[in-house]
Amino acid sequence: MKWGIYMRTYDLIEKKRDKEVLSKDEIEYMVREYTNGNIPDYQMSAFLMAVYLNGMNEEEILNLTLAMADSGERLELGMIDGVKVDKHSTGGVGDKTTLIVAPIVAACGIPVAKMSGRGLGHTGGTIDKLESIPGYRTTIPTNKFIDDVNRIKIAIVGQTVNLAPADKKIYALRDVTATVESIPLISSSIMSKKLASGADAIVLDVKTGSGAFMKNENDAVALANEMVKIGHGAGKNTIAVVTDMNEPLGNAVGNALEVIEAIETLKGNGPDDLTEISVELAGHMIVAAGESKDIESARQLAKEMINSGKALDKFRELLKAQGGNINVIEDYTLFPQADIIHEVKAEKSGYISRICTSDVGVTSLILGGGRETKESVIDLSVGIILKKKIGDKVNKGDIIALLYANDKNKVKEAEEKLLSAYDFSDKKPEEIKLIKRIIE
Amino acid sequence: MKWGIYMRTYDLIEKKRDKEVLSKDEIEYMVREYTNGNIPDYQMSAFLMAVYLNGMNEEEILNLTLAMADSGERLELGMIDGVKVDKHSTGGVGDKTTLIVAPIVAACGIPVAKMSGRGLGHTGGTIDKLESIPGYRTTIPTNKFIDDVNRIKIAIVGQTVNLAPADKKIYALRDVTATVESIPLISSSIMSKKLASGADAIVLDVKTGSGAFMKNENDAVALANEMVKIGHGAGKNTIAVVTDMNEPLGNAVGNALEVIEAIETLKGNGPDDLTEISVELAGHMIVAAGESKDIESARQLAKEMINSGKALDKFRELLKAQGGNINVIEDYTLFPQADIIHEVKAEKSGYISRICTSDVGVTSLILGGGRETKESVIDLSVGIILKKKIGDKVNKGDIIALLYANDKNKVKEAEEKLLSAYDFSDKKPEEIKLIKRIIE
Repeated sequence: MKWGIYMRTYDLIEKKRDKEVLSKDEIEYMVREYTNGNIPDYQMSAFLMAVYLNGMNEEEILNLTLAMADSGERLELGMIDGVKVDKHSTGGVGDKTTLIVAPIVAACGIPVAKMSGRGLGHTGGTIDKLESIPGYRTTIPTNKFIDDVNRIKIAIVGQTVNLAPADKKIYALRDVTATVESIPLISSSIMSKKLASGADAIVLDVKTGSGAFMKNENDAVALANEMVKIGHGAGKNTIAVVTDMNEPLGNAVGNALEVIEAIETLKGNGPDDLTEISVELAGHMIVAAGESKDIESARQLAKEMINSGKALDKFRELLKAQGGNINVIEDYTLFPQADIIHEVKAEKSGYISRICTSDVGVTSLILGGGRETKESVIDLSVGIILKKKIGDKVNKGDIIALLYANDKNKVKEAEEKLLSAYDFSDKKPEEIKLIKRIIE
Repeated sequence: MKWGIYMRTYDLIEKKRDKEVLSKDEIEYMVREYTNGNIPDYQMSAFLMAVYLNGMNEEEILNLTLAMADSGERLELGMIDGVKVDKHSTGGVGDKTTLIVAPIVAACGIPVAKMSGRGLGHTGGTIDKLESIPGYRTTIPTNKFIDDVNRIKIAIVGQTVNLAPADKKIYALRDVTATVESIPLISSSIMSKKLASGADAIVLDVKTGSGAFMKNENDAVALANEMVKIGHGAGKNTIAVVTDMNEPLGNAVGNALEVIEAIETLKGNGPDDLTEISVELAGHMIVAAGESKDIESARQLAKEMINSGKALDKFRELLKAQGGNINVIEDYTLFPQADIIHEVKAEKSGYISRICTSDVGVTSLILGGGRETKESVIDLSVGIILKKKIGDKVNKGDIIALLYANDKNKVKEAEEKLLSAYDFSDKKPEEIKLIKRIIE
């Protein structure tokens, strides 16, 4: 430990503690020296708590984002022709939109060069989901990644480049010091990775509701606003769509089950909510890439890509390029299969008025479909198919969901958790607006 | 690291972050597990920043104090007859009151069992000062400590018992994470040590001004109030005196120099400010011990102890009991002597309107009289004798101070620092009230 670094860090903690504004230099200093291991965790965590409680202004947030984006390698997409558009979701239960949106957008001729994470959660990330397709390689050399995008406009791979290591290290510390739920810290964390990923334009899906990180719509709007400002500040065309996560998106929760649902959606048979949000997000990406002049015509174009089968063809090309078995598209038995399919029946009659979405997520986790720690091994075959969602009328004894499981000892616990997620009422609840806000 | 402890700590950080009130159990948990090494520094520092920024209510502060007081051994004074009264100063420059007050109070027959720290600072602590008396032993067995107090009513020793180790560990962390200047944290830190020291009553000298930790009088009053509340909450008669530290107390700054000034004060020849504050503090201790009914008669009794020579006799007894050479009382050349005595002369004429007291402290540090790190070795002979203080009229060229030094290379730097501490004005400044508030 160098005494000078120690003292300067002390001064910067003190400054933020006293609600002062940190300069670009000062923020870069904190990020750089922490990433280099020169600032100890205990100084950084005091600093993060001061940021959590005293906030940061827009310039500070932008500088923090840029410093984290520059803390490691940046993905170099300059060799890809066209306007590269990236999409990011703040995460929810049953969110498989990337698997639908990316082929739609690529089918319009827009390059989609996607590097996705795995992450912890109720189900795996996009990369885990893709691994349920036999043969699909999530790790390919960078030159093939670039070549594939130039040739077929799409590639979806796991993170091979060391993107924003500062964010990774800071996030791990926030996670154990109760400093996660801070808009300056969340927005800079997400946007630093997006900026390091090298896209020209960014479409953000900010979820709100019982299954989202931002339970409250106002918080979600504030986060969306902040991220859009960061994007603009960094010179990137950035749009955020605030969408509902008061129930799982679509009906499938679980890795292989979600890929199947995504394929069905690409075939035009997807659940309404999932289709609507996918079309909306694809639409904004199409506008951002300059392929449509307005969102309405972009939505039409996105729908056309589904209806014409072009989006599904693009998905097939993606699988072929990355070694996946394309027969899964027609034959779902080629996916990992669960041994047990257990029917969950309604315990009372009435309209479903509420689904505690995070509890549905926990049900998936109980079945083995998610990752509790980095070391967890995901069971790609397990999950939940919801047969009834909010607003549906059910009678006691109706099947409301199917559990896909391999461990029969866990079925009972999962069933109890899932049943506890449902609330019923006598009256049909008001419909929830799926797309709540567009911020650009 | 146990996951359960991790998670519970997380919850408690979150609670304080969200301005909630922590229960007695929760506070004890944090203090105990941190002291035991089960809570990592980075979680504790986030917690401390949350406390710094969101505060604690009185019950939380009392519980924090008690938990820290109970984190190690407590000094057991039950075998000492009478009401044991302790005294604590928040520290300043030239503060040698313990050396005067303790003999005065003991001379009244009140037991003074004092365990003092060394601490970092501009000069040494009470224990360092006493070590400038040849032969004085600051470490004596606990049974002799108890016996001495019973026999002669006074003992002043270094800390041999592991008092409030939680406070020690937490303080070290606060010191590097900008979480020192918090009234809940300062008051609980001081009072935890006082409670662990086992006295029946506590008199606190809370300094305010340019040489004090609390520059601002309102802050000092708030701290004093909080400490008195903690004392009462713990069932101890507690009084705080808020006193001025806008210039050094007395004229001597430095270890041996301060002991000599303390002896002069016990002889009745002390500077007015030092004598006044010493009499005041002794007075409150006398009242707290029940030896006088009111503060006015207690002050009279304290003065009598000086004027009659009884306080000086008590000091002599103290030295004899702990092995110190009692001849120092008459022959100051027996103290460590500095090689160089350098005259500092006024650079302009006028009334001294202000002395930046902390700069006088730094002057002592430059000369080697204090401790910058725990490992620093103090030069007991060096220091400063102020010849002029606030309100004094000086002409350019008048001697305003003497520097006692052993390293002639440091004299110039020390002189510059000291000169920079003085401000002059044409008008005589208003007199500063020495005793600002009494809080009980």
